[in-house]
Amino acid sequence: MKKLEKITTQKENFAKWYTDVIQNGDLMAYGSSKGSIIFKPLSFGIWDNIRLNLDSQFKKIGVQNVNLPLLIPESLLNKEKNHITGFNPELATVTEVGGRKLNEKFFIRPTSEVLFGDFFKNEVESYNDLPLIYNQWVNVLRWEKTTNPFLRTREFLWQEGHTIHNNKEEAENLTTQMLDVYTNFVKDFLAIPVVKGQKTEHEKFAGADYTFTIEAMMKDGKALQAGTSHYLGQNFSKAFDISFKNTKNKIEHAYGTSWGVSTRLLGALIMTHGDDRGIIIPPKIAPIQVDIIELFASKDERISKEAKKIYNLLNEVGISAKIDSTNKNAGFKAANSEIHGTPLRIEIGPRDLNENKVLFVRRDTIEKIYVPLEKIKETTINILNEIQENLYNEAKKRLIKNIKIANNYKEFKTLIENGNWVITKFAGDGNDEEKIKEETGASTRCMPFNLDIEINSEDCFYTNKKTNRVVIFAKSY
Amino acid sequence: MKKLEKITTQKENFAKWYTDVIQNGDLMAYGSSKGSIIFKPLSFGIWDNIRLNLDSQFKKIGVQNVNLPLLIPESLLNKEKNHITGFNPELATVTEVGGRKLNEKFFIRPTSEVLFGDFFKNEVESYNDLPLIYNQWVNVLRWEKTTNPFLRTREFLWQEGHTIHNNKEEAENLTTQMLDVYTNFVKDFLAIPVVKGQKTEHEKFAGADYTFTIEAMMKDGKALQAGTSHYLGQNFSKAFDISFKNTKNKIEHAYGTSWGVSTRLLGALIMTHGDDRGIIIPPKIAPIQVDIIELFASKDERISKEAKKIYNLLNEVGISAKIDSTNKNAGFKAANSEIHGTPLRIEIGPRDLNENKVLFVRRDTIEKIYVPLEKIKETTINILNEIQENLYNEAKKRLIKNIKIANNYKEFKTLIENGNWVITKFAGDGNDEEKIKEETGASTRCMPFNLDIEINSEDCFYTNKKTNRVVIFAKSY
Repeated sequence: MKKLEKITTQKENFAKWYTDVIQNGDLMAYGSSKGSIIFKPLSFGIWDNIRLNLDSQFKKIGVQNVNLPLLIPESLLNKEKNHITGFNPELATVTEVGGRKLNEKFFIRPTSEVLFGDFFKNEVESYNDLPLIYNQWVNVLRWEKTTNPFLRTREFLWQEGHTIHNNKEEAENLTTQMLDVYTNFVKDFLAIPVVKGQKTEHEKFAGADYTFTIEAMMKDGKALQAGTSHYLGQNFSKAFDISFKNTKNKIEHAYGTSWGVSTRLLGALIMTHGDDRGIIIPPKIAPIQVDIIELFASKDERISKEAKKIYNLLNEVGISAKIDSTNKNAGFKAANSEIHGTPLRIEIGPRDLNENKVLFVRRDTIEKIYVPLEKIKETTINILNEIQENLYNEAKKRLIKNIKIANNYKEFKTLIENGNWVITKFAGDGNDEEKIKEETGASTRCMPFNLDIEINSEDCFYTNKKTNRVVIFAKSY
Repeated sequence: MKKLEKITTQKENFAKWYTDVIQNGDLMAYGSSKGSIIFKPLSFGIWDNIRLNLDSQFKKIGVQNVNLPLLIPESLLNKEKNHITGFNPELATVTEVGGRKLNEKFFIRPTSEVLFGDFFKNEVESYNDLPLIYNQWVNVLRWEKTTNPFLRTREFLWQEGHTIHNNKEEAENLTTQMLDVYTNFVKDFLAIPVVKGQKTEHEKFAGADYTFTIEAMMKDGKALQAGTSHYLGQNFSKAFDISFKNTKNKIEHAYGTSWGVSTRLLGALIMTHGDDRGIIIPPKIAPIQVDIIELFASKDERISKEAKKIYNLLNEVGISAKIDSTNKNAGFKAANSEIHGTPLRIEIGPRDLNENKVLFVRRDTIEKIYVPLEKIKETTINILNEIQENLYNEAKKRLIKNIKIANNYKEFKTLIENGNWVITKFAGDGNDEEKIKEETGASTRCMPFNLDIEINSEDCFYTNKKTNRVVIFAKSY
């Protein structure tokens, strides 16, 4: 594939920077149809690592994986109308097969609540059969008008968890628990700090009693919804007649939850850590953690020998490395490693070898460190840990710095204009949210949990009504 | 879910036995639309293990995972017409979105050769860029008229590998290599012996120069195509203009392969090993390898203590176990373990505990073995290995026993009638194959490689023409 000579800087044009780096970093290619993308080995490798690691967190709390069909018959979709209104304009519809018109239309799943509803109703008779804590890793499709690779594509990959319980409390606890699983996962593996909170009525998942969210801040200040966990109450259970005999021998409708994260996380990762040299992949999720670069490869056979030795050394302790033994020049190889976001590169050159050392270059700080040959293993382990921590700390600092308090609409507009998140007291309704979005581009992201920011005002910044409701607004992806 | 009181025996009605055991064994439920199924945790767990283990074999030979879109634009599909004729009547077609008619139709992928073709053409400039050895684990859809869970469903899960190379030899070698990867994988993990061979012109994948296959024998004698590997030559490269500058600086079209296995493997596994008590899952692919059954659980606390001890003991050496501590009776618990195909169950009862022993029951042979408490770990490891071996050996014996030679059409018909595979000399063409299929239900499965069966006749059993071509015929799934 042809590469750009120069990447647009973040300051020049953040959106252009984003599409430059994901293409030059070999993360994706555009698909054959509009709004579709191809996950190339690097981005799919990251997604595979996300799946592997998140799935093992799921299993610790008893989640079981299943797989439900892609297509939803029209009759089924109409059973729960609340949640579907929003998806309606985006539903890709199969109306014919091999040129013959079908009697019933089928929709490609935009999400699978109704399919799980129809499935669950036959699986449950007594309170003993509950809970069912299921999840699937699948593709879904929403025919979006404006698309952006990873962030908003017509088809995307995700996991969607669907559970039913024999009591409200257990279902509500699981809704909270999954939000914590997501929070810890994006923190520990993707090095992304988030704000946890609840969506407003206006922004919640239609069909849910309430929606929890984790919101991440991108380097341009915009918010990205990185994961959601919905408490569905008995809404889908009533629509699909998912009922059980309770301990008092009475028939009762089950209590449901659903929760998901998607390949949007790749977009979040790129826009949280990337810089003007390209993407930066946190070590704990990187398919390749170390690039081993042979300098002047053809001229000195000690170099390739040392490269293989280091490769094996790292392999032994579970660090994935890749050797670049091509005949390209040193600058090209370094830039190539940087644009692909490999956390650490080790350069092996003849002069350094004479002194029994190699050069480590960190992708995050571009710091150069000479490391004696006998210290390579431990130094690599330490530096990868440091990079992981540093990426998180930098992102966390930025997040805290850019959440600002607005006391009135004027302050609000200025702060939003300057790329901040605004935390404020808000008593408005959905109509007010729509108006504010029209005028400023900002929407409510959440009513945050445990955010250590004191707001002295007791008045809504917009309606001036007295309120205790704290809300975060931001422009978003 | 309601369970059947009694499972139809294999002898009574093999097809009915099959649908009985997969439902009673909690492998699947029927989906909301015709021809679709739901993979419940047990069957998806097996598929996940297949994916995990096969993928690690792939990675050893340099395969990289990618993900391409679900939908194929109509214009793209028409570029390579050879391979599409067969799929045409089965193509689910998206013609509208949210009630609005689209300008161009989209087909849900029945396989992804054309999508990879369109992708590859932009990825390659020089011989240096090759090979590209890509694979994806995805869902595909073919609107089949007659469906059968796992064996033939409208939507199924599979992996499809797609590669391009800068020379014919390398591509052909990879076609062979992948067939060997599949052969070894189904042998080592699924305990399924297969016959390797090449499909006839009539049965090969349209669009391929030739197709290799592995064919497995089910307990009713029918064949099941368990995996295929296609050498595509330059067919798709020419249709999609995938070309590269070769070492002589000339433009040349790339050489392609594709290869896949699907969730049909679950059907193969069930019909290779299952018996009248239910399914049998080979230990190396079983999500749960050992059921630990507490007998009279409520009456003696030593029992649950010992169960947990054994669970932890097995867990330490990577054996997955599950404790049944319910208050059901012993017979129910044993039957429940058997119907779910768990390779080994360990029953813990008070009387045996008094003698410091527990009871092992093998799922394959239903053999009962008393094991002293201090020998549980090593005995479990040994017995699981024995079960894996025994399942393979039994299937292999059956396979060899039921491949028979036919010298003429009369013998052929009798053998097919009796549920055998027939190996014979065959000089016929596609029309002859069609006629034979109409009259006997048998189709050509393959021209076998390295099968140690001597056929003395030099005449085709059907046309009487002289020929050296050895072909296997069988009824098939």
